[in-house]
Amino acid sequence: MATTKVDNGVNVDALLAAREALGKAPEAAQFNWRATCKWMNGTHSRSAVQGFHGLGQEQKHKTTFTFDADHPEIFASEDKGATPVELVLVGLASCLTAGVAAVAQNRKIQLRSVEAKLEGKMDIQGILGIDSDVRNGFDDIKVTFDIDADASKKDIEALVEQSQKRSAVFDIVTNPTNVTVKVNAVNAAGGGAR
Amino acid sequence: MATTKVDNGVNVDALLAAREALGKAPEAAQFNWRATCKWMNGTHSRSAVQGFHGLGQEQKHKTTFTFDADHPEIFASEDKGATPVELVLVGLASCLTAGVAAVAQNRKIQLRSVEAKLEGKMDIQGILGIDSDVRNGFDDIKVTFDIDADASKKDIEALVEQSQKRSAVFDIVTNPTNVTVKVNAVNAAGGGAR
Repeated sequence: MATTKVDNGVNVDALLAAREALGKAPEAAQFNWRATCKWMNGTHSRSAVQGFHGLGQEQKHKTTFTFDADHPEIFASEDKGATPVELVLVGLASCLTAGVAAVAQNRKIQLRSVEAKLEGKMDIQGILGIDSDVRNGFDDIKVTFDIDADASKKDIEALVEQSQKRSAVFDIVTNPTNVTVKVNAVNAAGGGAR
Repeated sequence: MATTKVDNGVNVDALLAAREALGKAPEAAQFNWRATCKWMNGTHSRSAVQGFHGLGQEQKHKTTFTFDADHPEIFASEDKGATPVELVLVGLASCLTAGVAAVAQNRKIQLRSVEAKLEGKMDIQGILGIDSDVRNGFDDIKVTFDIDADASKKDIEALVEQSQKRSAVFDIVTNPTNVTVKVNAVNAAGGGAR
């Protein structure tokens, strides 16, 4: 047992209380996460994240988070933001990392530093339509964690394993999710009237 | 035919030339996209995106793009960034939007505005470990596009359909991707020596 109090900045008591409460009121556990996206020019878009639904009511982040996305100059774009696939890597990295901190807190393991490097292999013959047998997305993703913590190598590995088991984005990336796309044609006149 | 030149800001000629060139040199089409992530405190992390590999050599974005991710206050976190799952929605939104612009350019359709709203349903009984039959990720994702363009409703719908067919993130979300996780225990002493 460590003699000093373990503090990774995660309020595990609150999370355990939420687990207890939501187990009794499963309708409050139904969340809706949202993003909006506005086309700027070319492959450049700006997305925003603020409102979401959960615990039975509308919720709001403290601030609106905005994200520019674009393609790099080697694709004849202006490189005004990360590429959409890099955003997915960031989502995966941050989900696993938050999980490591939460699990470490629950297991009373003091973290000193956690760093992750992610690499997603992609054959762009897929998205360019050169070869229809090549998938559009990543062939595979490699995640490498460097973790400094008051624990054995085995216990540190177990932190990451448990984080994977509870990670929303790890699930989204490794398993299929149904996506429904609806299109509203606004003012579509077909004649270039404006 | 429109009498004015269609310009959505996408250099389709360059993309078609790249398709031609990469079809003859498939090894140049092998890309590696990367992100690094550093744990800050609690569920807050900061990720960075800059280098990637493609066209047979190391490449760099013009700038380093950084992303704070966190959980909201209702999860007893400090809400210092979007949640990881919202980042995935942003990746999906921006990928489909860039595709709509590129396809429209190729089909000589002038876009006036493109806006997307995304909504991902999630039962957080999964990530909280309340019910092991509930998945951690999204139950499903709904995307709604509002598009104003010089084209018929049918042609506008076809833009989005083609964008889905070539979208890297749409593929990543709707199909499984293998993720390998490696853990290095740095300075792991197990005794709280520092």
